[in-house]
This record gives sequence, structure tokens and C-alpha cells, in this order.
Amino acid sequence: MGLTHTDDAGKAKMVDVSVKDVTTREATAVGTVEMKRETLDLVLSNEVKKGDVLGVARLAGIMAAKRTADIIPLCHPLGITGVDVDFETIEEPPSIEITATARIASQTGVEMEALTAVSVAALTIYDICKAADKAMVLTGIRLLKKSGGRSGTYVAEELLEK
Amino acid sequence: MGLTHTDDAGKAKMVDVSVKDVTTREATAVGTVEMKRETLDLVLSNEVKKGDVLGVARLAGIMAAKRTADIIPLCHPLGITGVDVDFETIEEPPSIEITATARIASQTGVEMEALTAVSVAALTIYDICKAADKAMVLTGIRLLKKSGGRSGTYVAEELLEK
Amino acid sequence: MGLTHTDDAGKAKMVDVSVKDVTTREATAVGTVEMKRETLDLVLSNEVKKGDVLGVARLAGIMAAKRTADIIPLCHPLGITGVDVDFETIEEPPSIEITATARIASQTGVEMEALTAVSVAALTIYDICKAADKAMVLTGIRLLKKSGGRSGTYVAEELLEK
Amino acid sequence: MGLTHTDDAGKAKMVDVSVKDVTTREATAVGTVEMKRETLDLVLSNEVKKGDVLGVARLAGIMAAKRTADIIPLCHPLGITGVDVDFETIEEPPSIEITATARIASQTGVEMEALTAVSVAALTIYDICKAADKAMVLTGIRLLKKSGGRSGTYVAEELLEK
Amino acid sequence: MGLTHTDDAGKAKMVDVSVKDVTTREATAVGTVEMKRETLDLVLSNEVKKGDVLGVARLAGIMAAKRTADIIPLCHPLGITGVDVDFETIEEPPSIEITATARIASQTGVEMEALTAVSVAALTIYDICKAADKAMVLTGIRLLKKSGGRSGTYVAEELLEK
Amino acid sequence: MGLTHTDDAGKAKMVDVSVKDVTTREATAVGTVEMKRETLDLVLSNEVKKGDVLGVARLAGIMAAKRTADIIPLCHPLGITGVDVDFETIEEPPSIEITATARIASQTGVEMEALTAVSVAALTIYDICKAADKAMVLTGIRLLKKSGGRSGTYVAEELLEK
Repeated sequence: MGLTHTDDAGKAKMVDVSVKDVTTREATAVGTVEMKRETLDLVLSNEVKKGDVLGVARLAGIMAAKRTADIIPLCHPLGITGVDVDFETIEEPPSIEITATARIASQTGVEMEALTAVSVAALTIYDICKAADKAMVLTGIRLLKKSGGRSGTYVAEELLEK
Repeated sequence: MGLTHTDDAGKAKMVDVSVKDVTTREATAVGTVEMKRETLDLVLSNEVKKGDVLGVARLAGIMAAKRTADIIPLCHPLGITGVDVDFETIEEPPSIEITATARIASQTGVEMEALTAVSVAALTIYDICKAADKAMVLTGIRLLKKSGGRSGTYVAEELLEK
Repeated sequence: MGLTHTDDAGKAKMVDVSVKDVTTREATAVGTVEMKRETLDLVLSNEVKKGDVLGVARLAGIMAAKRTADIIPLCHPLGITGVDVDFETIEEPPSIEITATARIASQTGVEMEALTAVSVAALTIYDICKAADKAMVLTGIRLLKKSGGRSGTYVAEELLEK
Repeated sequence: MGLTHTDDAGKAKMVDVSVKDVTTREATAVGTVEMKRETLDLVLSNEVKKGDVLGVARLAGIMAAKRTADIIPLCHPLGITGVDVDFETIEEPPSIEITATARIASQTGVEMEALTAVSVAALTIYDICKAADKAMVLTGIRLLKKSGGRSGTYVAEELLEK
Repeated sequence: MGLTHTDDAGKAKMVDVSVKDVTTREATAVGTVEMKRETLDLVLSNEVKKGDVLGVARLAGIMAAKRTADIIPLCHPLGITGVDVDFETIEEPPSIEITATARIASQTGVEMEALTAVSVAALTIYDICKAADKAMVLTGIRLLKKSGGRSGTYVAEELLEK
Repeated sequence: MGLTHTDDAGKAKMVDVSVKDVTTREATAVGTVEMKRETLDLVLSNEVKKGDVLGVARLAGIMAAKRTADIIPLCHPLGITGVDVDFETIEEPPSIEITATARIASQTGVEMEALTAVSVAALTIYDICKAADKAMVLTGIRLLKKSGGRSGTYVAEELLEK
């Protein structure tokens, strides 16, 4: 299948979805922020106290999901009905894994909303920790699964292999 | 060094920079979108015609850099004076590498502006190509170097090793 | 009833409303800006001429209602179908009372839209008059009534008592 | 002193500040959210666990301070250099007091940034708790003090009387 | 027919559309940027290479259409389902004609979205070319046709005369 | 002089202004909304009562000037220090002329801010009056003069000829 966002002459366009069905759609994305062990310890000890680093990152991800169409030029403006952002600590390599799930009843999917939530939560972790560690890497940001819509359900190979 | 964005009690705060010097600052970030070879071919053949996929991604990165403080909760609002976003095709694994450089004369650095430009350009490539390839991965988003400001110059180890 | 915006572990989340019914909803909020008598006279004499202070405040309230989900982190993005902002002069203590009503056909209510419209209209009155009176107070900002949705109609006690 | 935001004919205008000196300015505002005792208990018990209600409200206030010129029509766009938002529990009447301080080196003051931070933090508390208590009231939102700029230092009477 | 955006007393209001039918609506607007012949040549020779001037203008128009309710105070927030922006070179007088078509299934029309797309695309052409030509004129920005909604189809006289 | 917003390869970039001097800059733009005589009468009779059509359009223009860098992709974010928007009635052809002047002390000019203010004020007049007259035309939007900056003062030929 070709690129739907560019027409035959290669010009950018916003795909017309007015004839698509309104169905319930859901998408889940993940990504990881790799950091020095000491940085992870700083985040976690702060977490124990008040949870602020991840609390701020969660909120940043939620707010970014709501504004996806403002950030990604050819995304349709959507009224998402829900979004969750969660974090898991990984010991080796020391890192924080971010998972975001977005939901909507609409004519287009919410893959970009989930991916944007993960990316902005990751950027926010970088921002808050960068005085301690500038070598952090945002990595493995990808779609895990999505359901609903004419193109049906997508499940990443890594899940199928499990 | 501890986390500057959280105070002693772990509460989020916006770091006060009013006593910092105004100096010229610059930051460069990179990141990669890995994709199927056929997807890369689609992007490149479109590029040959009108350059739209990467043209839209470039513009998305530039506009996101300008709005970084709107997207990242504890970033200071900055009037960046310049930003470049560039792309390079990598053959193996098939991928597009994104490089963004932001510049400013200000009291705070522009690392987040450069990282946000790379991330949003990468998300935009995903958005435009997702009908053809949902398995793309945004990876290796990191700071390459930054100069200016009291904390001085930072150069990523990968550059030092070269 | 507990707090719907935080899950069992106290983490922020955006409440999933995808299974809620789409019904017509309406909410009315009020609030007051108390000021020196001379300040009220300034506002009113300006009103007589061109109506600008309250005209600007009305527009600020309407525009803020449209952007509520951008301002309040866990609010759902809504396409409100109408909003009114009105003002009444109160003689003692000298003050301006602001009333805002928002309407929508949606899965979630518009209480926050009405309250945001009142608050921003009040802040705008403060902004325009602050050179003359820095001691103004924004006070009594509250929900008067709301209808529609599963939780049904709410009417503030002050109205029931009348 | 008259209204600076309206010209002789009463038309709205954005006050020209290009000839004003750039000085360091700071402003502190306060406000209160009154609620049922059970609601306050809910907020506080959640606070003990993870701090989310006030954590989200703090972040909402900080982000709103950065976007004040986008929300209040005649405010100048400012690059604030710092903002703090803090909360204090009041037992009688049961309520949460919000204090916000904004700082900048600029040609105009940051009173509106501090007042906007307080108002949006208060609205956010309302939003998160509204399923439990729709009768909450946002009240006593006012400027406590400001310093810097040609008009000099302002201190609210309530502070002078102490 | 009178002005629907002002009530009997002339106050601004956002028209209530909650009882209007949801129908498919479409609107097309046009406009022209007149410029020196050398400026048009610069745009076109750049176009031949990479298409950037018009590519940036197209994207600016698409993004502005999505944000119309944020820019035009009394417009309803809409989730447009599609928008196209196209350009045509006119030789005499040397100029670029911009055509934008917006589509939606909603309770209100998308005339303002189409007109805003044309205007912002035109402003963007001015911005990119202004170092070479400050005398460019944005002109003839108008609605060409619209369909859908209770007020039915509108076709500009210039089309009827053809 | 060539196009400064595209580099040698025709790619979009944001011009680096970090080495430009900070000088006081001012720009004035004008534009016209042509309409049926009855429409102009409606606007003016409303003006006599409360001034709302033009009051809303003025505020829309002021707010758009502040957000120019958000609307025009390659514009630098600026903290404008002042902006005025004024209207004049023209009898033949029946129309409203809009004049906007923007001011700043900065490294880049404010031509785009003045032009954006005029365009958005014109779009707002169209929006408010469109139920009565869909054939209105936004026309003659152009820069009248600008001062400050390395490129010096520009005055449109129409002014020089007077």
C-alpha cells in the first residue's frame, strides 16, 4: 500500500475521512528512556517521595495526546475519549519503559495519539533529568497494537512471537 | 548533580533562570526512524518527485521546536533564533536519520528544542508512512552536543570516540 | 463517590468516556470581581462609550471555553456548540458578576467550560483595570447548575433555597 | 489612574511597552478552593499516597502561567524565567489555599501570570474532584504583592496590617 | 438576514448549533498573492528544485484550517475530516492563486476553515518571499462555493456567470 | 535578493537571526473587506449600539499578532511590545479598511505580525457577517511601511506617490 498522506504528484494533503465509519478505536504504543544507573536511582528515589518525575511525564504525555493534531501536521483533529500513560522500571540496561493507550470513537485511528504520548513523556523525563545526565537516549518508540477501523487489528510481531 | 526540576520535597517546579547570563547557545540532537526497505523506497521515490514526506517532517520539526515550552511542561518559553532539521538515508538497517540544531541567545539552553524537533519530525514520518508500514521504530533519539551557558560544552561520547 | 481522575494508585488519568451516551448537556457557572467603587465607575463609563472592558472580557471567556481541554490537563477535548458570557453590575460591594453558560452534545459535561469562561473573563477584567486598582478580588466562582449526562441535573443549593 | 488597556475612544489596545525599562519583576498571587470536609479528606489521602491531585494542579498552574498571553487577550507575550505554585490545607472552612509566584526580567510585570497560575490550579482541583463535590467554590483570588517596574512595589493591605 | 454572531443588544456570542443537523459539508475558497515577475520566477525556480515555497505554504494552510476556531474568536471548534490546498501560477499580473477546500460532517459549515487556509497560505508565501519583494499584495480572498447545511448550497456569482 | 527562508537546495529553514542587532522595529499593514451596502449598514448600526463586530475583529487581530509564529511556519517567536488595530469605513465600494501597526525591540521585524493582524481581523469580520453576505471579499492586504533593522525603512509606493 502506498503513502496515503501524499497525492499522486507527491503533494502533502490531509486524508479525507468523511466517508469512513465511526467505530471504537484503541491504540497502544511503547518506548524507553535509557539512562545511567545513578539517574534511574534519582528518578526512583524521587518517585518514592512524591512521584514527581514520572507524575509530570505522565501528565505531559496525556496533554500531548490531546494536542496531537496540533503537533503532527497532517493528523486529523480528534476528541479522544481516554488515554493512559504508565511506566515500568527496567534494571538492565537501566531504563524506564513508557506505555500509552489512547481510545476514541471516531473515523480515524489513534496510533499517532499513543505514539505522541510516549514520545512527549520520554522527552519530559529527559528534560527533568538532563542536569544529571545528558547522555540519556529515547529509544524503541513503536506501535504495539491497534484495533478498530477498516484496516482492522494490528499487533506488533514482538507480541505475536510471545 | 541532582534533579533541578524538583525541589527538596520532590515537587515539580520551573527552575528560576532570572539570574543566569544571556549567552549564545546551540544544541544538536539526532534520532532515527527504522522502516521496511519498501517503505524507505516509497519515501525516497516520493522525495525524488516533490520531497513531500521529508519536507513535511522538516517543517513539523521546526514548528515543534518553536513550541517546545508548550509541549514539555517545565521548559522555559524561549524565542529561538534559528533551527535546522536535516535528513540522511541509511541503507542498513533501512532508516532515515534526523539531525536538528537549535540556536538562541538566552538564559537557558536549547537541548529540549533540538530533541523535540527530532522527535516530532520522526513522528511525522511515521504518520505519513503508517498506512504502508506500522512496524516503524523511532530510535536512538539523543543529544549530540550543546554549547553555551554556565554548564559549558557537552559532546556525546560517540563523537569523542571518533 | 471518589475521585474519578485518579486511579487506585493515585496516578493521574484521563477518564475513559467512550462508552458514555452522547446527550445534550448544559452548564452554568457564576463568579464575581470585587473592586473599588471608582474602578467600577471607570468600567461603567467606558461601557457607556464603547463597551470595551466587558466586551473584551466576554470574548476572552468565550475563547477560553473553547480551549478548556488545552488549559485543564485532564479535561476531554470537546467541540462545544455554544457559549454565552454575561455581566451584571452589583452596587454593594462594588463588583461585576459574570455568568457563563456552555452547551454541547457529547459524552462528557461542560461544567469546566462554564467555570473556565467565568474565570478567564474575570482575569481579563483584572488585567484591563489593574493599572487603576490592584486590590480587585476574583471571588465566588462556582457551578450554578448543569443538566444532561448519567449523573443527571445538578442545581446549587443557593438556587434551591430561593 | 485610568484604564491603560483602552484608548480615549474606549477601544481595546495592547499597551505599548517598548520604551519601558527591562527590570527584574516578581509577583505573588493567592486564592482558595473551598470544599466539603469529605472532599478535602479525599484530596489529602490521595496526597499521602501519590500526591496526584495537587501535583496535577501545580503543573496546570505552571503551564498556564507560561501561556498567559495566549489566554488573556491584551497581555504581552513574556518569557517568564520562573514560577512556583504551592498549596496549603486550611481546616476551617475546609479548603486548599494556592500561592503562585512568577518571575521575569522584562518590560512588563507578571501579575497576570501569577493570578492565572492560581486560577488554573484552582480550576484543575475542581475538575479532578467534581465527581465527588460539585459545590466547591474558587474564592479570594487576588494579588498579594509585586515588585519591579516603574510603578514600583505593591503590597496588599492584608499583608501591611499584619 | 441579520448578523447571527451578535445578539439583540449587539453583544458577541457564539451561535448555538446544538439543534442543527449533522450533515456533510464542504467549502471552497480562493485568493491570490500578486508579486513582481522576478519574485514569481524565484518561487517557480525553487519549485522546480524542491517545491519548498509552495510546499510550506500548503502545509501552513492545512494546519491553519485545523486551528480555525483558535484563530477566529466566534468560530465553533470542529474536527474537519479533510482539507486540500492547491496553487496555480498566473502570468498577468504575475501572481499565485491559492484554492482551499475543507470538508466535515458536522453541525456547522467550513467556510471559515477554507478561507483561513487560503489566507494563511498567502501570508506564508509573503513571509518566505518578503526579503525579495515587500510589495506583494494578498487579494481577492473569497468563498467560491459551499454545500451542506440548512442554508443549502452557495455558489459565487463569478462561477454562475461562467 | 533571493529567498532567505530556503537554503541552496530549496529546503525550508528558519533564518538564523542570533547575530542580528536588537533594534526597535515597527510595521504597518492595511487591508480591506468589501461587502454589500446592506452588510456595511448592518455592521455600522451594530457599531453605533455596542461596537461589537469591529470590537471582536480588533481583538482577533491583536491576539493573532501575538501568535504569528504559531500560525506562520517559518516566523520567529517574538515578544511584541504593542499592536494597534483600527478600522475605517469606505463608502464606495462599500467596505471596511483595516490598519494594524505592530512594534517590538528585537532581532527580526514585525511585518508578518502586522499582516497577520489585518488578515485575521478581516476573516473575523467575514465570520460575523457571513450569514448576511457570503460574497464579501478580503482584498488589498499589504505592507504600508516598516522601520528598524538592517534592511532599514520600507515605504510602499502608494505612500511615496502621495
